[in-house]
Amino acid sequence: MAHSVAEIAAAIGAEAVGDTSISITGAAEPAQAGPADIALALKPEFAAGLSAGAAQAAMLWPGAEWESLGLKAAIFAPRGRLAMAGLTRMLDPGQGYGAGVHASAVIDPSARLGADVSVAPQAVIGAGATIGARSVIGPGVYVGAGAEIGEDAILHAHVRIGARARIGARFIAQPGATIGFDGTSFVTEEASNVEQARSTLGEVAESRAQAWVRIHSLGGVVIGDDVELGANTCVDAGTIRPTQVGNGTKIDNLCMVGHNVVIGDHCFFASMVGIAGSTRIGNHVVLGGQVGVSDNITIGDNVVAGGGTGIISKVPAGRVVMGYPAVKMETHLEMYKALRRLPRLMEQVAALQKAVSKADGSE
Amino acid sequence: MAHSVAEIAAAIGAEAVGDTSISITGAAEPAQAGPADIALALKPEFAAGLSAGAAQAAMLWPGAEWESLGLKAAIFAPRGRLAMAGLTRMLDPGQGYGAGVHASAVIDPSARLGADVSVAPQAVIGAGATIGARSVIGPGVYVGAGAEIGEDAILHAHVRIGARARIGARFIAQPGATIGFDGTSFVTEEASNVEQARSTLGEVAESRAQAWVRIHSLGGVVIGDDVELGANTCVDAGTIRPTQVGNGTKIDNLCMVGHNVVIGDHCFFASMVGIAGSTRIGNHVVLGGQVGVSDNITIGDNVVAGGGTGIISKVPAGRVVMGYPAVKMETHLEMYKALRRLPRLMEQVAALQKAVSKADGSE
Amino acid sequence: MAHSVAEIAAAIGAEAVGDTSISITGAAEPAQAGPADIALALKPEFAAGLSAGAAQAAMLWPGAEWESLGLKAAIFAPRGRLAMAGLTRMLDPGQGYGAGVHASAVIDPSARLGADVSVAPQAVIGAGATIGARSVIGPGVYVGAGAEIGEDAILHAHVRIGARARIGARFIAQPGATIGFDGTSFVTEEASNVEQARSTLGEVAESRAQAWVRIHSLGGVVIGDDVELGANTCVDAGTIRPTQVGNGTKIDNLCMVGHNVVIGDHCFFASMVGIAGSTRIGNHVVLGGQVGVSDNITIGDNVVAGGGTGIISKVPAGRVVMGYPAVKMETHLEMYKALRRLPRLMEQVAALQKAVSKADGSE
Repeated sequence: MAHSVAEIAAAIGAEAVGDTSISITGAAEPAQAGPADIALALKPEFAAGLSAGAAQAAMLWPGAEWESLGLKAAIFAPRGRLAMAGLTRMLDPGQGYGAGVHASAVIDPSARLGADVSVAPQAVIGAGATIGARSVIGPGVYVGAGAEIGEDAILHAHVRIGARARIGARFIAQPGATIGFDGTSFVTEEASNVEQARSTLGEVAESRAQAWVRIHSLGGVVIGDDVELGANTCVDAGTIRPTQVGNGTKIDNLCMVGHNVVIGDHCFFASMVGIAGSTRIGNHVVLGGQVGVSDNITIGDNVVAGGGTGIISKVPAGRVVMGYPAVKMETHLEMYKALRRLPRLMEQVAALQKAVSKADGSE
Repeated sequence: MAHSVAEIAAAIGAEAVGDTSISITGAAEPAQAGPADIALALKPEFAAGLSAGAAQAAMLWPGAEWESLGLKAAIFAPRGRLAMAGLTRMLDPGQGYGAGVHASAVIDPSARLGADVSVAPQAVIGAGATIGARSVIGPGVYVGAGAEIGEDAILHAHVRIGARARIGARFIAQPGATIGFDGTSFVTEEASNVEQARSTLGEVAESRAQAWVRIHSLGGVVIGDDVELGANTCVDAGTIRPTQVGNGTKIDNLCMVGHNVVIGDHCFFASMVGIAGSTRIGNHVVLGGQVGVSDNITIGDNVVAGGGTGIISKVPAGRVVMGYPAVKMETHLEMYKALRRLPRLMEQVAALQKAVSKADGSE
Repeated sequence: MAHSVAEIAAAIGAEAVGDTSISITGAAEPAQAGPADIALALKPEFAAGLSAGAAQAAMLWPGAEWESLGLKAAIFAPRGRLAMAGLTRMLDPGQGYGAGVHASAVIDPSARLGADVSVAPQAVIGAGATIGARSVIGPGVYVGAGAEIGEDAILHAHVRIGARARIGARFIAQPGATIGFDGTSFVTEEASNVEQARSTLGEVAESRAQAWVRIHSLGGVVIGDDVELGANTCVDAGTIRPTQVGNGTKIDNLCMVGHNVVIGDHCFFASMVGIAGSTRIGNHVVLGGQVGVSDNITIGDNVVAGGGTGIISKVPAGRVVMGYPAVKMETHLEMYKALRRLPRLMEQVAALQKAVSKADGSE
């Protein structure tokens, strides 16, 4: 997959200079780049590595003096990471699962596959499932009965789509992603220990030898267009209404989206985020790694939560939160600074007590 | 799968009124309900949606004036979520993996399958494995050599059961659940960095270029009856004695149960809970999402831990804990309230110091 | 797989006494041991169980009076857990995936398998992949196009190796481990909410309805020799340069290693550890369960972090850290002790204020 420097620049809408006919097959850091790689030096501090590598062409910060860096060609990228998006898309050789439908795949005769759908070895597609045109069904993938998947999807190895899940166009699911299986919803015959603890804020009156009774998940999952789910991430089916993920939302590896959760459009969750059941999350919400969100609460649009934050109550739109339990970022920093000074504060109070008691002559 | 209102009421032991011959095929929230759905309005505040939907029958709170809500029939559910358990079980169409043994499944001739066991495409069952009657082995599932699984199990897509695991009746495992593979147990030739840090509370005397030596897991896993494990949840094999999960315990997605852990009966763990090696957990313990429990400690019966709690030492029976490190819930709330006021406290102490120093005429 | 007591002692380099010809087929705790088991009583407090069990031979602490414990033979293990490593390796019957290449496996003709590689049912090996001699490819495993795996690897059920991953010798991957698929790297056309929040420490100026643009992962993964990855653990591909895991590093279940991360040699991560993108981790680093590490930071050699620690900035070599955000362990303990006393401190300050105000006769 070779592209000239000129083709790359045109594709990403950037300016190219020098011998733009040079053929590029890969991208590399400056010091590791070979002659067919485009070196990435998007800031001046990365330019030093160019002399150690063998790149003829580089993607540089605007205004870089490319000729003095020993290059034959350069592309200027005003917003570097955005240019990287275009560049890496052009150069990505992909997983190469292969075209066509492999003989070992098991596809129910009632399933409907769009034009140019590929199905890799050992995949299983259930009765009545619908797969949109040009979608790639990876090795060992399971698509459940009646599931609907839009056009241009990529389901990587061992993805599992539960029965009747509805998924939009251009869906990407990394290996082991699990969509639309049973939510974990149980009830006890009488009030359970956790219900007691919640209502009394801390007392469990008596040991209760109760069994958990299962609430089945009938609500399924509805996922919008342009969604990406990471490896081993789970989106559980809703109980009565569907669990929902909005258009353009990206969720990293090992995340958990509980039953009945509603996630808006264009959110971004880093890895290991957990959203407990029935919580509603707005649009453009960004959650850092290992963030946890309690059940049955609401997170407004544009909320940002730092890594490891534990959100246990409603967060209004636009707020940036941190800590466990989550508070406004500036409050968290203030509390934390004070906590670090706390041992010294205790000494100061002890000294004051002594001084006051002496002054008093009493106590 | 249609049921009359009368049949549903009888099955869940609830009172039905009106035209109880109406045929029901699904359940829905009031505003989304069609004429063949039973609408769920278990509290008065949900009744408003009924007029927007087309339900003829609803499940209502005790005492609801069903006729004035425009319904033709109603079921009264005294403990609503318990009624939902019965209702959703009746209406669940399931994953539909199909009956019989699929031709693509690979079953060792020495494996023994009970009556009416179904095996979906691409599943693998190892030598000497035993599967109880009526169990469902989903697509791509792996059951290891010598594993024993009880009657009426459902192993969803891509579940993996390690060699010689012993599992009771009515076991449910969601996709990617992994039971009975190697625990992560390593040792160094000399005391490791972490052993030094534990013994000195903070000092690692010297860089030690030691390799980790693997301790193999011979102890296997023993799981009781009526256990459910979530998607991608892991229960590791024990080292010498088995890792154990008691009867009726339910564990959500993406949880980790380490080697040698013993979990009692009827526990409930929300998603992303991690239990480190050799810890013992009593009966009826409830752990919120993302709770972590250290290795080699004991959690008593009926303990409840809030989401995100980090339990690093023994917790007595019946206690409700929160925080990191975990403390009693009321202690946590008190500490947290004080922490929020801490910046103001620091100002107060500074003012006091000034006042006392002035009064002293000294310092 | 029977071994005499003498053979076991010789293999682990320990001293054996008594009738060392006794044949051993398993290991057990003292009270559960049968006559063909070696009982493990590595400390005096475990010896009591021996009389309840039927062991003829035991592995004991140095100096134990084995004959008075009713044993016919004993092995003395100076560093007990190290002896257990040797013992359990000898006695481990393994998963038993079977020898040879199963007929249901799908292996691209251009893949190269070394001598005595076994491939279990339903596995898939892509074009140009290379598997070293004696490696075991488990049931349903996927090895991507052009991936290279060294000698003596064990890939357990449903492991997925992405295209072009390069992995050293003696690699062990537990079920569902996912290596070398796309990192989660996105960029917005304009500065995103999270970029705004980072630069202003808390303010998101305006709602921005921006879509996330995908940066593809071209950098792959490079894994050293003697690495073990736990069940459902993910190591994402790098963007331009490879994500790296050094020799001898062991990572437990459900961990996340982000794109571009570099991990040194002989590290040990407990389960549910998350390392965000582009972070560098030194050699011999030990991270407890559920530890999170922010992106783009550096962790020095020999660092130890307690379970649940949230590391958000650089940690120098040799430091033992704890807490969220992580601080030195002794600082954490001091802060935490102070926090526990904080409610009392507030009362003391209130009393002081009263005393000072009375003394002043003012305020």
